[in-house]
Amino acid sequence: KDSYDVMLLPGDGIGPEITAATVNALEPLQSLFKLNFKEALIGGAAIDAEGSPWPDSTLALAKASDSILLAAIGGPKWDGNPRELRPETGLLAMRSQLGLFANLRPAKVMKELVDASSLKPEIVEGVDIMVVRELTGDVYFGTPKGIDELPSGERVGYNNMIYHEHEVERIAKVAYDVAMKRGKRLCSVDKANVLDVSQLWRDVVIKMSEDYPEVELTHQYVDNAAMQLIRWPKQFDVMVTGNIFGDILSDEASMLVGSLGMLPSASMGNPDGPGVFEPCHGSAPDIAGQDKANPLAMILSAAMMLRYDLGRPAEADMVEAAVDVVMDKGYATNDIQREGTTAVGCKEMGDKVKEEL
Amino acid sequence: KDSYDVMLLPGDGIGPEITAATVNALEPLQSLFKLNFKEALIGGAAIDAEGSPWPDSTLALAKASDSILLAAIGGPKWDGNPRELRPETGLLAMRSQLGLFANLRPAKVMKELVDASSLKPEIVEGVDIMVVRELTGDVYFGTPKGIDELPSGERVGYNNMIYHEHEVERIAKVAYDVAMKRGKRLCSVDKANVLDVSQLWRDVVIKMSEDYPEVELTHQYVDNAAMQLIRWPKQFDVMVTGNIFGDILSDEASMLVGSLGMLPSASMGNPDGPGVFEPCHGSAPDIAGQDKANPLAMILSAAMMLRYDLGRPAEADMVEAAVDVVMDKGYATNDIQREGTTAVGCKEMGDKVKEEL
Ligand SMILES: CC(C)[C@H](C(=O)O)[C@@H](O)C(=O)O
Ligand SMILES: CC(C)[C@H](C(=O)O)[C@@H](O)C(=O)O
Repeated sequence: KDSYDVMLLPGDGIGPEITAATVNALEPLQSLFKLNFKEALIGGAAIDAEGSPWPDSTLALAKASDSILLAAIGGPKWDGNPRELRPETGLLAMRSQLGLFANLRPAKVMKELVDASSLKPEIVEGVDIMVVRELTGDVYFGTPKGIDELPSGERVGYNNMIYHEHEVERIAKVAYDVAMKRGKRLCSVDKANVLDVSQLWRDVVIKMSEDYPEVELTHQYVDNAAMQLIRWPKQFDVMVTGNIFGDILSDEASMLVGSLGMLPSASMGNPDGPGVFEPCHGSAPDIAGQDKANPLAMILSAAMMLRYDLGRPAEADMVEAAVDVVMDKGYATNDIQREGTTAVGCKEMGDKVKEEL
Repeated sequence: KDSYDVMLLPGDGIGPEITAATVNALEPLQSLFKLNFKEALIGGAAIDAEGSPWPDSTLALAKASDSILLAAIGGPKWDGNPRELRPETGLLAMRSQLGLFANLRPAKVMKELVDASSLKPEIVEGVDIMVVRELTGDVYFGTPKGIDELPSGERVGYNNMIYHEHEVERIAKVAYDVAMKRGKRLCSVDKANVLDVSQLWRDVVIKMSEDYPEVELTHQYVDNAAMQLIRWPKQFDVMVTGNIFGDILSDEASMLVGSLGMLPSASMGNPDGPGVFEPCHGSAPDIAGQDKANPLAMILSAAMMLRYDLGRPAEADMVEAAVDVVMDKGYATNDIQREGTTAVGCKEMGDKVKEEL
């Protein structure tokens, strides 16, 4: 195959400018194969234009695409909206409707940014963790849920933290497979000392270890994992955990790296459908439209897309190498500036990657 | 009142030795008022002796006590037990049966330990956070819960993440009251962008802010809070959150401080019943019985007991001041040793505090 349909979801805030910088940076690849970009709406932009954060037209285009690049969603403008008209709701609908149950979030510390973290250099130097987060189950999607009024007039709010065996199996399989391609160490994070849902999680993860005799499996309770990530992050290779614990721990892990502006992610699951590749950072409405945003997380997300969804690992390596060279040469957007770097804007950063590519 | 019945729960691992060191350190106070210590069983020790991690006899003595000092529970010996025979289950039963809905966990960085954290000194210096964690609700105690087998043969595990309005009100009141006595800034942590239970939580916390016009209320999503705690912890004064998010975030916050061996906690709720005061660290079976444990977290927990449960704030100040002096003089157990300190064991550390007191 030498032509791919890639849906672009620029979303809100800095989304459009980092999307433009990414498309520009990838331009040299077009001589090797064709990336047909098509834009669609999600999040606040979609609410404003179509009255829904995940319009049917976007879903239809998604299903017809080979892969999806998402920039960022949300902003204060929509924060007070009812739940069905909030940008986040669009994101959750996308994950669920496209079957994106596996979220891969690497936290790899680049040598140039060792000093940029709030943790000591000797703690973060060499850290290279892959957090595998389950993305379509757990308390995010569990039912029953809601806010009820009791006969007494008191309100009660509830969400069901629930996992089916097959949901744990398929995410564990992803995690074991990732571990096999990396350091062969897998840490499963749960709260099995308190929660039944975690007990099932742990049972299933242990049972599956029979199929992966080479992978060293360990378990940590989520509270301990939150400590260990800061105390001694180099102990981790691959971590696997549920949706809500993964939400918390992957964001915590991202702080090991100097800037959120460098962190890509991949959301996958359905072998016949598109995966979604997006930066871990938000839409940063405060700097939107000022050419200050860092497009590297989105460019690195595009590299993950090439590797995991389009079967183009060599080109993924090329994109990552280009980013490395640009970092080496000391070009830096606002968020990663340090002594001796040359300040560039969002657009120029895209140009620099393009040149190296 | 000049005589208090204090139940001691030494528990497992290093529990007995830090309990002995604490009782010894507090000895000088006995000339001011009487602390009648009575020991009882909890955790693994109680399972071994009575077949239950929270025996009826312990509950009865607890109810007859003014306050409770708990050391630590758990160990590999009981890890494989069924849930009802696990040490943690005793802890949860204690919290629930004694109505201990409010868990206060200070994370205050002592100047002597600024360099002991894995975070940079300039990040942790001056950090002084109080985490107020709800302790008897949420997914910890919510029903329905369990592991079922579906007709298909597949298993499903679930726990209900649930809060009643009155549960949120009473923990929020504790948090606002604590904030009024401190820096008057309160950050409520939830996941209201996704969870109904968090939406109710947030509504109630906001509604109650009317009664506390002087307190500056902010909100963070739990994933963001996990980042902000590392990125810039000095932004926080008091944090209030639910049971599971509090479990994770309070442990994360404890890493800002150089050693878990310094961190006390208080669990309260029922004005007519005893509160429970305990170190944040675990039972450390690997160093149990070797006189290596740090008793300061338990001694500082006793100070919290004096302040919050026995109405003896002056004596609480005295105990904390004594610990400060001992730290200043450079006495240090294994976990907090640094350049220029004098190594002491658990027992001797208790003696040093006693001398200063
Ligand atoms: C925006 C929010 C719904 C989302 C989540 O909680 O999954 C975000 O925090 C993330 O991690 O992608
Ligand atoms: C031991 C465990 C049940 C307990 C909890 O999760 O509450 C512990 O982690 C704590 O924070 O006191």
